[in-house]
Amino acid sequence: MVELLTYETMKTSPDSWTPSIGAARVLARCDALALRSDEAGRVTRTFLSPAMKEAHKLVGGWMRKAGMTTRVDALGNLIGHWAGTSSDAPFWILGSHLDTVPNAGKYDGTLGVLLAIEVVASFREPLPFAIEVIGFSEEEGVRFKTPYLGSRAVAGCFDSSLLNLRDAEGFTMRAAIANFGLSPDEWRAAQYGGKRVSGYFEAHIEQGPILESLGEPLGFVTSIAGQSRARLRFIGHAGHAGTLPMHLRRDALVAAGAWILEVEKIGASTAGLMATVGFIQASPNAANVVPGEVLCSLDVRHADDDQREKATDKLVEIARLVAAQRGIEIEVVSRLSQPAVPMDSRLQQLLRESTDGAPDIVSGAGHDAAIMAQLAPATMLFLRTPGGQSHCPDEAVNESDVALALEAMRTFLIKIANSGD
Amino acid sequence: MVELLTYETMKTSPDSWTPSIGAARVLARCDALALRSDEAGRVTRTFLSPAMKEAHKLVGGWMRKAGMTTRVDALGNLIGHWAGTSSDAPFWILGSHLDTVPNAGKYDGTLGVLLAIEVVASFREPLPFAIEVIGFSEEEGVRFKTPYLGSRAVAGCFDSSLLNLRDAEGFTMRAAIANFGLSPDEWRAAQYGGKRVSGYFEAHIEQGPILESLGEPLGFVTSIAGQSRARLRFIGHAGHAGTLPMHLRRDALVAAGAWILEVEKIGASTAGLMATVGFIQASPNAANVVPGEVLCSLDVRHADDDQREKATDKLVEIARLVAAQRGIEIEVVSRLSQPAVPMDSRLQQLLRESTDGAPDIVSGAGHDAAIMAQLAPATMLFLRTPGGQSHCPDEAVNESDVALALEAMRTFLIKIANSGD
Repeated sequence: MVELLTYETMKTSPDSWTPSIGAARVLARCDALALRSDEAGRVTRTFLSPAMKEAHKLVGGWMRKAGMTTRVDALGNLIGHWAGTSSDAPFWILGSHLDTVPNAGKYDGTLGVLLAIEVVASFREPLPFAIEVIGFSEEEGVRFKTPYLGSRAVAGCFDSSLLNLRDAEGFTMRAAIANFGLSPDEWRAAQYGGKRVSGYFEAHIEQGPILESLGEPLGFVTSIAGQSRARLRFIGHAGHAGTLPMHLRRDALVAAGAWILEVEKIGASTAGLMATVGFIQASPNAANVVPGEVLCSLDVRHADDDQREKATDKLVEIARLVAAQRGIEIEVVSRLSQPAVPMDSRLQQLLRESTDGAPDIVSGAGHDAAIMAQLAPATMLFLRTPGGQSHCPDEAVNESDVALALEAMRTFLIKIANSGD
Repeated sequence: MVELLTYETMKTSPDSWTPSIGAARVLARCDALALRSDEAGRVTRTFLSPAMKEAHKLVGGWMRKAGMTTRVDALGNLIGHWAGTSSDAPFWILGSHLDTVPNAGKYDGTLGVLLAIEVVASFREPLPFAIEVIGFSEEEGVRFKTPYLGSRAVAGCFDSSLLNLRDAEGFTMRAAIANFGLSPDEWRAAQYGGKRVSGYFEAHIEQGPILESLGEPLGFVTSIAGQSRARLRFIGHAGHAGTLPMHLRRDALVAAGAWILEVEKIGASTAGLMATVGFIQASPNAANVVPGEVLCSLDVRHADDDQREKATDKLVEIARLVAAQRGIEIEVVSRLSQPAVPMDSRLQQLLRESTDGAPDIVSGAGHDAAIMAQLAPATMLFLRTPGGQSHCPDEAVNESDVALALEAMRTFLIKIANSGD
């Protein structure tokens, strides 16, 4: 049994380690990792890109320095293993993702992986369970327009048909995996045997303004809001911008514009609802041609699945109406309908105790924890996001909050160790 | 003096040539040229692309078969020379452009070049003037977002700073020219000595519904409508689609959408006005990120310059208002403000006579003739466009109209020859 102690006397910590030192190191590593990017001057790291290869070298090195052995599975998840007191000990998974959106900040995903490594580094002696730290290869869905590729494989929700998806350059996922030096056909081996996994813990920036508005550094997540994603294609008719009279046009972009305004209106009409068109692509997309086709994304989120589904259906219906009024056809493809995922209630309680009573919060963002909850009891710790901005270069985190998160994660794991799990 | 005769007895025509045979050949060549494309299955041929190289081989061959010598100038214009009766004869330029918009039809530009070659082929003996047939390298402005590159160089309105423009892949125009095997620094030599050029003639599909609605196969152009082009950048703030509450968003795409609806409204509010947003690019353009920036094109046309400028100013003002209401910044860059260009009145009269009284028409589309009018008296012949569609695969032309256009062009040139020009 590991004794539960205050930090000052904690026997499992290397003598020279303090949460402040750990926090400084974690943030310096976030800075270093941000330079491993697909684009000069911006943070963009997509699934199995050359920058991800560089990120693996760096993060893998930090894992080994923390005493872990490392491996990369067939989906490109980077995994560090820290042995428990016995070779057949069950294990806990700590992790988050290493990929980013285009022109991202430095903390979304990355911070959770580096906090997990730092927590392992803080322990001087093994715990009664093994720890695996996973840097998931893909959570954002940027390259193949399909999110959670890494955690799906680990949690056993991957589907071999996904290997045939193509990126914007026409590469299949299968080719991308092979090109990274991995074997796509070994995707099944990435799946964890459920029985040996005691739980999943993910630390993450909140990515929103709530904890900041409460003046709280940390929060524990009760539920991850459900998400609907769809693609809508408005199909009008291209024509010459100088000769096609306005009244004869079937301009797909004007139709899409009218719908985008409705998406905002519906999003703002219901508390807790978020509705976003983040992606748009017009065709032929030339200044002197009336747009013939426009492809748009739709992203709808709410903690209540009924509210989310109602809003999504309504927005698709409005798109059909807007299109019909303009003689424009529409194709709708649903890409994701992910129900809200409650976090494990016992672990919520344990995390509340480990944080001296941090507030509970619903996650508006999706996380690997939503997928990993299918494999094992899952829990999430949120760190305050000053300014509330995320998925952009302004993303920020307070160093003192990072130190508190490290203490909370250590306390949580020691409580688990003491509970005999 | 060349005797003006009906086709049946026209001495300058090869015995076996008829307008019907010429029309069949022109259309077969349009089909063949459409296969020289930057994209499989679509007609897309941009400035100095590999497909343009292939187009030069094909069209250059047809020029030589018609008895012309060929050359390519520093801007990539393909020029066929057909000598006149004396070596110091002045010359007429006949031409149009060989580039296309993305996913274009087979006739915009191409038809005018191939008609000019066919007319030259129809003459058995030299005329008292030389003819140069130009296949302009660039009219649409697709690759460098700047139109009329070919005719600007020929007409002496090219500017060396244009050589530094960059395409979407980051290549400068200078590099694109060199890569095509040409010498960018020789751009000045592309300019024609004005004195020797008696006139410019361009045949082109109407690209609109007017001639069809009149039941007329041909029309002569009185004026080319003025064009304003601008780029507007809406600068909001990117954020996470699942955590940034709707009321705190500064979504650049919603602002752009609201403005695009106003562009349609203003365009429809004034007779003869066309207002189009043909190009849109959102950033970061990911489904789960609130768009931080959106770049849009604006294209405004009218035969009356005051009306065009008033509408353009109004639309920029509305963009500023829409943006300000949403806490969004805006940058506006004017890319083109081209006044309406009247065609030469004497040549209009001659063309009316050569077409047995075809109707006059204002061209809503811009054409190389608008630039070439700065070098020499310019005139344009329009061919009916069944369906009125252009800049799209549905672009069409009637074979019988093509035969009538060949007769009109032959008659016009013989009238010129007879007039002693």
